[in-house]
Amino acid sequence: MIKITLPDGSVKEFSSGATPMDVAMSISEGLARNVISASFNDTAIETTTPLTTDGKLVLYTWNDAAGKKAFWHSTSHVMAQAILEKYPNAKLTIGPAIENGFYYDVDFGDQTIADKDFKEIEDRVLEIAREKHEFKMRSSSKADALAFYKAENNPYKVELIENLEDGTITFCDHATFTDLCRGGHIPNTGLIKAMKIMSVAGAYWRGDEKNKQLTRVYGISFPKQKDLTEYLELLEEAKRRDHRKLGKELELFTFSQKVGQGLPLWLPKGAALRDRLEQFLKRAQKKAGYEQVVSPHIGQKELYVTSGHYAKYGADSFQPIHTPAEGEEFLLKPMNCPHHCEIYNSKPWSYKDLPKRYAEFGTVYRYEQSGELHGLTRVRGFTQDDAHIFCTPDQLDAEFKKVIDLVLYVFGSLGFENFTAQISLRDQENRDKYIGSDENWEKAENAIINAAKDKGLNTVVEYGEAAFYGPKLDFMVKDALGRQWQLGTIQVDYNLPERFELKYKGSDNELHTPVMIHRAPFGSMERFIAILLEHTAGNFPIWLMPEQAIILSLSEKYENYAKKVLELLENHEIRALIDNRNETIGKKIREAETQKYPFMLIVGEEEEKSGTVSVRRHGQEGKGNVTVSIADFAAMVNDEINKTLKTFVVAD
Amino acid sequence: MIKITLPDGSVKEFSSGATPMDVAMSISEGLARNVISASFNDTAIETTTPLTTDGKLVLYTWNDAAGKKAFWHSTSHVMAQAILEKYPNAKLTIGPAIENGFYYDVDFGDQTIADKDFKEIEDRVLEIAREKHEFKMRSSSKADALAFYKAENNPYKVELIENLEDGTITFCDHATFTDLCRGGHIPNTGLIKAMKIMSVAGAYWRGDEKNKQLTRVYGISFPKQKDLTEYLELLEEAKRRDHRKLGKELELFTFSQKVGQGLPLWLPKGAALRDRLEQFLKRAQKKAGYEQVVSPHIGQKELYVTSGHYAKYGADSFQPIHTPAEGEEFLLKPMNCPHHCEIYNSKPWSYKDLPKRYAEFGTVYRYEQSGELHGLTRVRGFTQDDAHIFCTPDQLDAEFKKVIDLVLYVFGSLGFENFTAQISLRDQENRDKYIGSDENWEKAENAIINAAKDKGLNTVVEYGEAAFYGPKLDFMVKDALGRQWQLGTIQVDYNLPERFELKYKGSDNELHTPVMIHRAPFGSMERFIAILLEHTAGNFPIWLMPEQAIILSLSEKYENYAKKVLELLENHEIRALIDNRNETIGKKIREAETQKYPFMLIVGEEEEKSGTVSVRRHGQEGKGNVTVSIADFAAMVNDEINKTLKTFVVAD
Repeated sequence: MIKITLPDGSVKEFSSGATPMDVAMSISEGLARNVISASFNDTAIETTTPLTTDGKLVLYTWNDAAGKKAFWHSTSHVMAQAILEKYPNAKLTIGPAIENGFYYDVDFGDQTIADKDFKEIEDRVLEIAREKHEFKMRSSSKADALAFYKAENNPYKVELIENLEDGTITFCDHATFTDLCRGGHIPNTGLIKAMKIMSVAGAYWRGDEKNKQLTRVYGISFPKQKDLTEYLELLEEAKRRDHRKLGKELELFTFSQKVGQGLPLWLPKGAALRDRLEQFLKRAQKKAGYEQVVSPHIGQKELYVTSGHYAKYGADSFQPIHTPAEGEEFLLKPMNCPHHCEIYNSKPWSYKDLPKRYAEFGTVYRYEQSGELHGLTRVRGFTQDDAHIFCTPDQLDAEFKKVIDLVLYVFGSLGFENFTAQISLRDQENRDKYIGSDENWEKAENAIINAAKDKGLNTVVEYGEAAFYGPKLDFMVKDALGRQWQLGTIQVDYNLPERFELKYKGSDNELHTPVMIHRAPFGSMERFIAILLEHTAGNFPIWLMPEQAIILSLSEKYENYAKKVLELLENHEIRALIDNRNETIGKKIREAETQKYPFMLIVGEEEEKSGTVSVRRHGQEGKGNVTVSIADFAAMVNDEINKTLKTFVVAD
Repeated sequence: MIKITLPDGSVKEFSSGATPMDVAMSISEGLARNVISASFNDTAIETTTPLTTDGKLVLYTWNDAAGKKAFWHSTSHVMAQAILEKYPNAKLTIGPAIENGFYYDVDFGDQTIADKDFKEIEDRVLEIAREKHEFKMRSSSKADALAFYKAENNPYKVELIENLEDGTITFCDHATFTDLCRGGHIPNTGLIKAMKIMSVAGAYWRGDEKNKQLTRVYGISFPKQKDLTEYLELLEEAKRRDHRKLGKELELFTFSQKVGQGLPLWLPKGAALRDRLEQFLKRAQKKAGYEQVVSPHIGQKELYVTSGHYAKYGADSFQPIHTPAEGEEFLLKPMNCPHHCEIYNSKPWSYKDLPKRYAEFGTVYRYEQSGELHGLTRVRGFTQDDAHIFCTPDQLDAEFKKVIDLVLYVFGSLGFENFTAQISLRDQENRDKYIGSDENWEKAENAIINAAKDKGLNTVVEYGEAAFYGPKLDFMVKDALGRQWQLGTIQVDYNLPERFELKYKGSDNELHTPVMIHRAPFGSMERFIAILLEHTAGNFPIWLMPEQAIILSLSEKYENYAKKVLELLENHEIRALIDNRNETIGKKIREAETQKYPFMLIVGEEEEKSGTVSVRRHGQEGKGNVTVSIADFAAMVNDEINKTLKTFVVAD
C-alpha cells in the first residue's frame, strides 16, 4: 500500500500501482471525467502513470494552468504527426506548451509551410483526435533512442539525446507516432475538439542565431469548439484595442527612431490625457496630506551605491554619465526613492512631524533590450506616480489603510472593478534573510493583513514573496478582455531608511529610524494609459476625455452659433471643440466616431433658432439622439461624470 | 591739424598734440569737469594723452562703464602704493578693474593682511587722493623696465616684462609711486572721494594652481562718499535677498552632495511655487493656442548629430550614456527643440494646420564646471518653459507679436516693470555667414522690429548679434536692486527645420520648410524663481504665494473656529493654513513674518463670537490691522490679486 497526500492535506491509501485516474475515480466520477493531467511530488506525470511510492498528488482539469499545459503540449504531438504526414522530409525538434497554446519548431528542409497549408493540417489533427488515441509513455535506452533518430535522419533529436543521461530517456507514443518526450499528457487525443494553427515564424535552433533557422509553427487547441471561437474573437478584439494602434489613431503618442526606441513622445492629446490623470491623482493626494516635490532625473553614482541599486542593477542599466572634467559620474535615475530620502534628510524631524508623504510624478529610465520593448507597456523611460511615506512603525497601520483607500478611489474612478490584492509576506521558515527587526516585520505584516481585511479586499497571501527589505501588497486587475495586469503596488521598506541614515526624534527624545512606504496606484503613467486604452478601447471615462464633446456645424454658416455653444460649454466646464470644416455632416460624424468623442453636438438652423444642440452619443448610431438646451446637455455630462468619478474621502 | 571724429559722427579739427581734455573743453566746460577717461580708435588712453593723428575719440564720465573702469583701475594704483608703504617687502603683480571695483594680487611674503588692516590702508588711499596727484604715463625700454623690477626684487613684474616686446612697455607714475601699466587712468587721484577694501582671497599667480598663491585684495571706490554708502547698502540688501538664503529660510529648495552639485531638489513649498508658475503660464499659453507635449530627457546621440548640437557642444557636455548591449549611445537632452522637431515630423502638415505651437516644461541638463555653479542661477539641470512655434514665413509677424504679448503678460503679472528689448540682427556688412534666404531674413528681421515697435517696447538694436540661424529678441530686466538680468528670449530659427527636414504643404501644393520660433518667457524655472526671490525679497505677488494666509489661534481653544475659517477661505479659493500650536501669539507672528505669509489672521474669543478675523499684513507691524468678516477678507485678497495678476488677452 502507498500513501497519497492530496492538495487539501488529506491522505488516502492505495495499492501500489494505482494511477492518478484511479485516485480521481476514488474521489468522484465527475472528477475522473474532467481530470486531464497530474503531477506527483511536483513533477508532471500521466494520468495513467502507476504510483508506487508515497507522495503528493495533484490532479488537474482544463481550468488549471497545468491542465492547459498538458492539453496544449499533447496537441503539439498530434500536430507534429500531421505535419510529418504532409511533409515526410521535415525534421521535428521541440514542441512545448506556451502561455497561450503551443509551438513546434520544425526544419522543413527545402519545403515551406504557409497560411494556405494550415487548414489541411488542422483537419488532420482533428481527424486523429477523433480516433481517441491514448498517449503512452515508454522508456528507452540512449543507444536505442539514438539509433531511432539516426535512422530517421534527424540530427536535432540526436543532439538532444546526446545531452541526456542514459536511464532518463522517454518517448511518448500515440497512434503510429512517437516522439522524444519528458511526459505530461492528457489521457487521449479525443479530448481535443478544436485546434488552430495561429502563425509561423522563424526561430533559430536552440535560440542561437549561429544555428540553422527553423520554422516555428504556433497552434492552440481547446476541449470545445466554442472555446476556440471565443478565443479568436478575444484576439480580434485585443487587436482592435491594441494601445499602439489606438494611440496612433487617437494621436496620443508616437515614437521616433531618431529620439530612440522605447522613448515615447506624447502628442498634445496624449499629454492632455496624462495631465488630467496626474491632476486627478494630485487632487486626491493633496486631500490625503501628500506634498509634491521635484527632483532631478540624474544622481551621482554614489547615491545609488548608498541605496544599493548600483551593486544590484548597475551592470544591466544605462551606463554612467561622465563629465568632461572633475571625474564625476552620474546615473539616469531608475527610481525616485533615493532622491526622496535625501529630501527627507534635508532637515531634522520630530515624531510630531510624521508621517511625511513626498509625492512626485517622477520620470525614470531603465534599460530594456530592444527585443523586449512593447508600445507603452515596456519602455525605457516612464513616469511613476510615485510617493514615499516616512512614518513611525506605529503609524504603519493607518497609513496602509489610507493608501488602500487611495488605490480603490483610483480604480473606482477609472472603471477597474475586477481585482485581487496579493499580499507578499516573509518565508515563515527562514526569517533570517530579511532586514529589520522581527518586531517591526510583525507590525508591518499585520498592518497589511489588517488593512486589506478592513477594506474588504479579495486577497491572496503568498509566503516567501516579500522583498528582503519589507512586505508588500500588489493589486492584480482584470481588464475588459479578462487579461490580468499588475497595477498599483504598496511596499514597506526597512532598508533604505537605514542605508540613508534617516532619523526622527521620538517622544522619548531619542533618534529612531522611520519606516518608508513606496506606493504607486497607477504604477507608471505609460503602462497605465496603455492598459486603460485596451480596457476601455479608448472610450475613457468621460471626466478623463481630453475633449468631452465635438460641435459639428451643419455648414460653415453656423460658425458663430458653434462658437457661442463652445463658450457656453466652457462656462459649464465642459471641454469641447468645433469642427466647422466645409465637409458633409456624415463625414464629420464618421471622423468624430473614430476619434471617440463621447458626445457629438450637431448645430444647424433649427438648433440656432431654439438655442439647442442635437446630441449624438459615441457608438450609438441612430439611437436616442436628443435635442436639448446647453444647460440640459451640461447636466447630462455631469450625470455621467458622477457615475464614474468618485469623491475621494480621507479617513480620519 | 588733425581730424577728430566724435561718437555722434561729427568731425572737429584740432592742432596735433591736443589732448582729450582739450577736446572736452572745446565742447563744454561742464563736460570737461566730468570727463575722467577716454579711448582713441578703440584703445583706452589718458585724458592727457596728446593726439597726433586723425581718429575716433570717445570721452567717458563716471556714468560710462569705461569711465568706471578707468576710475577703479586708477584707484588700484593708489591702493598698491598704500600697501607698499605699510608692507615694504610686499611684491605687486597685477591690479585690474573688474565688474564692481578692482583688485590687486600681492605677494605679502611672510606677512599677512587681515580685516583689521583695511582701515589704515583705506585712510592712506584717501589721504593720497586728497593730494590730487596726476597719473602720468611714461614709456620705458625693456632693459630699463627689467632693471627697475630686478632692483625691486619683484620676480612677477620681471616675468610680465619678459613677455612684452621692447617698445610697448609703459609705466604709470603718480606721487612717488610707479607701476608697470598699459594705461587708461583718470586725470588725478583727487577724484577718488571714497574707497573701501571689500575682502581678501587667495589667488594663484597667473591663475595656475602650480604657481605660488598670492593674496587678492578686492577694493572699490567712488567719486562721492554717498555712492559708497549706497553701494554698501545695496550689497547688504542683496545679501538679505540672496535667493540661496531665502530659499533655505522659506524651505523652497535644497541641494544634496549625494545627489550632486548643481542639481536642486525642490521641497514641497518650492515645488508648489513652481507648479503655480507653470499653471499660470499654461493657462495663458492654452488661450494663445499652444499645445502641451511631453518628451523624454534623453535622446540618441544621432538626434544631436542631426541637430548639430553634438558637433558644437558634445565635448564640453555630459558625456554619452552607453547601454549594456546593442552599442547604443544616448545623451541627456540639453534642449527640447530636437524632440519637438520629431513630434512635428510625426505626421504631414498643410499650411492650413499651421502655426503649430508645442509647449513643454522640459527639464534639460547642461554640464557646468563646479566652480561656475551658483544657487539656482547656474545649475546643471533646469526646467525651461519652452515652446516651439512652427509657422509659415508669412505668419512670423503675427506670431512674434503674440509671443511679445505673452512675455509682457508674464512680466506684468510678476512685477517686472523695468525692461528693455534687445534686438539682435545680422551683421549688415557680412550676410553670407547666415543660413536661410535673404528674403526670409528680411521678413524675420522686419517681423521682430515691427512687433517690438507695435508693442511700444523700449528697444536696443544690435547688428551682428543674431545667431547664424536667425535673429532674436531678448528681454533685459532690471530688478528692485537695479541689477540687470536677461529674462525671456524669442528666437527665429531657419536651421533646425532644414536639418530635420520639416515640411508643410503650401497653398501651391508644394512642400515648403516652416520657420521655427524658440521662446521662453521665464527662461528657466530655476533661474526665474531665483531672480523673482531676489527681486521681491520673497514677498511674491499674492496670487503666486503657496499660502496666502496663516490663521493664528490665540490659544488651542480656538482650533475649531480656526478650522471653520480655513474651510470658508477654501470656499473663497484662498490658500491658507493654521498655526494652532501651544505657543504665544507673539512667537507665532514672528515666525509667520519670517515665512512671509502675506496675511496673518488672528482668531480668538472676540473673532469667534463675531465670525471675523483680525488681519495683520506681512511687514506692517502695528499698522492698519483690521477686524473683518471672512467675505470682506476674501475681497481684500482678490483686490490685491487683481492689482498684479493681469488678464491675458489674445490678439485676433
